[in-house]
Amino acid sequence: MLPLRFAKTSSLFSPNILFSNFSPKQPRTTLLSLTTTKQHRSQSPMASSYTTSSHASKLLFRQLFEKESSTYTYLLADISHPDKPALLIDPVDKTVDRDLSVIKELGLKLVYALNTHVHADHVTGTGLIKSKALGVKSIISKASGSKADIFVGTGDTVYFGNLFLEVRATPGHTLGCVTYVTGDGPDQPNPRMAFTGDAILIRGCGRTDFQIFTLPKDTLIYPAHDYKGFTVSTVGEEMQYNPRLTKDEEAFKNIMESKSKPVISKDDGHSGARKSGLWDARPDFQSLMNL
Amino acid sequence: MLPLRFAKTSSLFSPNILFSNFSPKQPRTTLLSLTTTKQHRSQSPMASSYTTSSHASKLLFRQLFEKESSTYTYLLADISHPDKPALLIDPVDKTVDRDLSVIKELGLKLVYALNTHVHADHVTGTGLIKSKALGVKSIISKASGSKADIFVGTGDTVYFGNLFLEVRATPGHTLGCVTYVTGDGPDQPNPRMAFTGDAILIRGCGRTDFQIFTLPKDTLIYPAHDYKGFTVSTVGEEMQYNPRLTKDEEAFKNIMESKSKPVISKDDGHSGARKSGLWDARPDFQSLMNL
Repeated sequence: MLPLRFAKTSSLFSPNILFSNFSPKQPRTTLLSLTTTKQHRSQSPMASSYTTSSHASKLLFRQLFEKESSTYTYLLADISHPDKPALLIDPVDKTVDRDLSVIKELGLKLVYALNTHVHADHVTGTGLIKSKALGVKSIISKASGSKADIFVGTGDTVYFGNLFLEVRATPGHTLGCVTYVTGDGPDQPNPRMAFTGDAILIRGCGRTDFQIFTLPKDTLIYPAHDYKGFTVSTVGEEMQYNPRLTKDEEAFKNIMESKSKPVISKDDGHSGARKSGLWDARPDFQSLMNL
Repeated sequence: MLPLRFAKTSSLFSPNILFSNFSPKQPRTTLLSLTTTKQHRSQSPMASSYTTSSHASKLLFRQLFEKESSTYTYLLADISHPDKPALLIDPVDKTVDRDLSVIKELGLKLVYALNTHVHADHVTGTGLIKSKALGVKSIISKASGSKADIFVGTGDTVYFGNLFLEVRATPGHTLGCVTYVTGDGPDQPNPRMAFTGDAILIRGCGRTDFQIFTLPKDTLIYPAHDYKGFTVSTVGEEMQYNPRLTKDEEAFKNIMESKSKPVISKDDGHSGARKSGLWDARPDFQSLMNL
């Protein structure tokens, strides 16, 4: 277990695949020098990308679905980097083989398996991935109380090649929920993409969090689940149309209280990574509403 | 019912939302003069787009899922056009209200409901859409033998604002299957996107068709269904990894023959749009393999 916040120049990481301590208000300086292998290759014929950058596309992005738990797993990779470093967000145990197969086919090197939170409704695939793909590091928030190789919190940055994710704490559904947001910069995906876990679902939310709404309105929202068949939304859309988040505080609290019992799947026996007490977490709605 | 191929300048269409007869080898001339309202507005905060064009993004794109039949419906709109004209590909009856709700929320004007083919495994939402959203025109291939307002075939082009789809006949799964491909040009999405219906599924296919493989390798493939949780692939990937399409002719024929019985869902009673004989269609594998 590596305390991320103090691992700025750790030699444990490949020079081009590392973490930095992200400071949203200040320009990044020290660590980028290790990751500026700018190679504007033409796009791989094998890859699809999702960016609108005027530069050659670098981000390979795949949204993958696990039907039984209606869970989305996200594959991101920097395909302009020689190593094609990749990460998975919220992998599910049942679809690990599918995910690793796609990663192999696309010639990617899986570096990280991230969780947005401890999942009650499905079993994370992180452990299985680590046993099948050696060298992969697991990442989760420290506040989750769960096990992982690396713990993250607000202000941390997860680099894969020249691309990175910012970490934003988004407690509510659980105290340890985080949202991973693609970087802000000319070489990063535009519009930005927010992987919200259960903090915001499209036109709904697990509990809620308003920090996400400080992102630009065109930020794409990719949730951990969807039960209606949506695959993506935007911050602007959810601010306007999310039926829960457009309520005033009292109405919102009533909705949330009535839904506070977590959904436990039939796979509940497999809960090694889950810690007691997470589901008793009662967020401070007052402070959340006033953010 | 309007025979598209002779409707080049039909006054039935709004000047900015029309069809042209597409000729891949020749520059388009006559009809584009009616659709060159080039407005490089900044992107709407409400919209997400999928293009990598160096121009301001114009295409709003949403992939929508119907879980029971594992069907994808695709929403495309030109959000840089004042009317924000939109179309739906392969809408499902059960999710029409969801689709129309999103269209309304995003401020789009639904113009066309297209089908890639006559669906055996779910009921198209086209008729329901036409009853709920007046003015919407339905589109299907003439070879489908089905009913629609407008029939299309190879070489036709479907305009929505300044964006367009090319029609490519891709028989195999049914004789009437077509693939809709986003346009080729500086103001069109890059990489291109192919809506293949059942002609190619990711790492599988309904029957098959090789015309799709003449598209650039980075063309994104969006199928009508997926049963494994994939949402997108590319031409290059499928050429390399599709387990059926990498077989030689004899092996492929054996696979296809063994799977020639169509899947009929429990909703089969609702089959007004289906015509007898479609499922007896036997493609000429020899000619398809030699394309």
